[in-house]
Amino acid sequence: MAYIDLGVDEKESPGIIGPMRFRPETAQHLNGLAEVLLRAPNSLPPGERELIAAYVSGLNDCTFCCASHSAFAAEQLEPGMALVDQVRADLDTAPVSAKLRALLRIAGAVQQSGRAVTPALVEAARSAGATDVELHDTVLIAAAFCMFNRYVDGLGTFAPPDAAAYTPMAKRIVAHGYGV
Amino acid sequence: MAYIDLGVDEKESPGIIGPMRFRPETAQHLNGLAEVLLRAPNSLPPGERELIAAYVSGLNDCTFCCASHSAFAAEQLEPGMALVDQVRADLDTAPVSAKLRALLRIAGAVQQSGRAVTPALVEAARSAGATDVELHDTVLIAAAFCMFNRYVDGLGTFAPPDAAAYTPMAKRIVAHGYGV
Repeated sequence: MAYIDLGVDEKESPGIIGPMRFRPETAQHLNGLAEVLLRAPNSLPPGERELIAAYVSGLNDCTFCCASHSAFAAEQLEPGMALVDQVRADLDTAPVSAKLRALLRIAGAVQQSGRAVTPALVEAARSAGATDVELHDTVLIAAAFCMFNRYVDGLGTFAPPDAAAYTPMAKRIVAHGYGV
Repeated sequence: MAYIDLGVDEKESPGIIGPMRFRPETAQHLNGLAEVLLRAPNSLPPGERELIAAYVSGLNDCTFCCASHSAFAAEQLEPGMALVDQVRADLDTAPVSAKLRALLRIAGAVQQSGRAVTPALVEAARSAGATDVELHDTVLIAAAFCMFNRYVDGLGTFAPPDAAAYTPMAKRIVAHGYGV
């Protein structure tokens, strides 16, 4: 259970939900950021942006964020979780567009360090059709999940071990967004 | 210079300023988060919260964020930059309170990974007087700077090499806040 008293039943309010209830003053900005980055109108479809979030969360070994954003991506991409699993298992061979693969490589670099992003990685994405806004948003999505992942695990929150627990969250996020 | 066309003169708008002008939709939430975490009323003084931000930014080797938040901390702490430099050089011997030292140790763990925070680190901070809100905010400040640092460096933005360049920014932030 969490390192601080979040004032919630963590089985009912797992992962980031507890800290967000505990501190609504910060939650409003965290939700606002997630809504713009993952759901607002954008040339990158929401499912692809959620896939970037899930990919980075997997690299950060954050069970709650990886399982939840994998479910959110699967809900909005064909063929669903099989594609998410392929990307997470082997990005080089996963059946995604050249542009999305190049953006995921940038996200993977950001997960290590901002300084790990190279002109060559950026140029590869641009050659595959990525725009400046797509490059910007990919870097910020990856950076933001380096925050969300640390927030969730740094407070020792509970992550449901069963993947099925994340399906209702996915339905809710796809229908209603990040609650701003 | 930055990897994308930010539409600014980076000498005039260095570091995070360019990406924030480029994408005001995300900037409003990033600034809102910074304002709550670093400046809103809190039992941790603003200078101590800026010190946590500077410390994490140094660990992430982010020149712009470390120099700017070191200046913001120095402006609001006695004896100024000498204290910031001591904390960054050797946290174990720096002349800070036991509570702040324990919180900075938690921040250093978060910089590595959310999973690097241990019950022992949390208990040490609690024994030194840290409250649940202070523990929460320390984890989120450290996590947020793992985002800001990656955002600034992942886009390859310009960081003024001269420490004096950050003094006017410090005066502005202390007087006017993060512009929300």
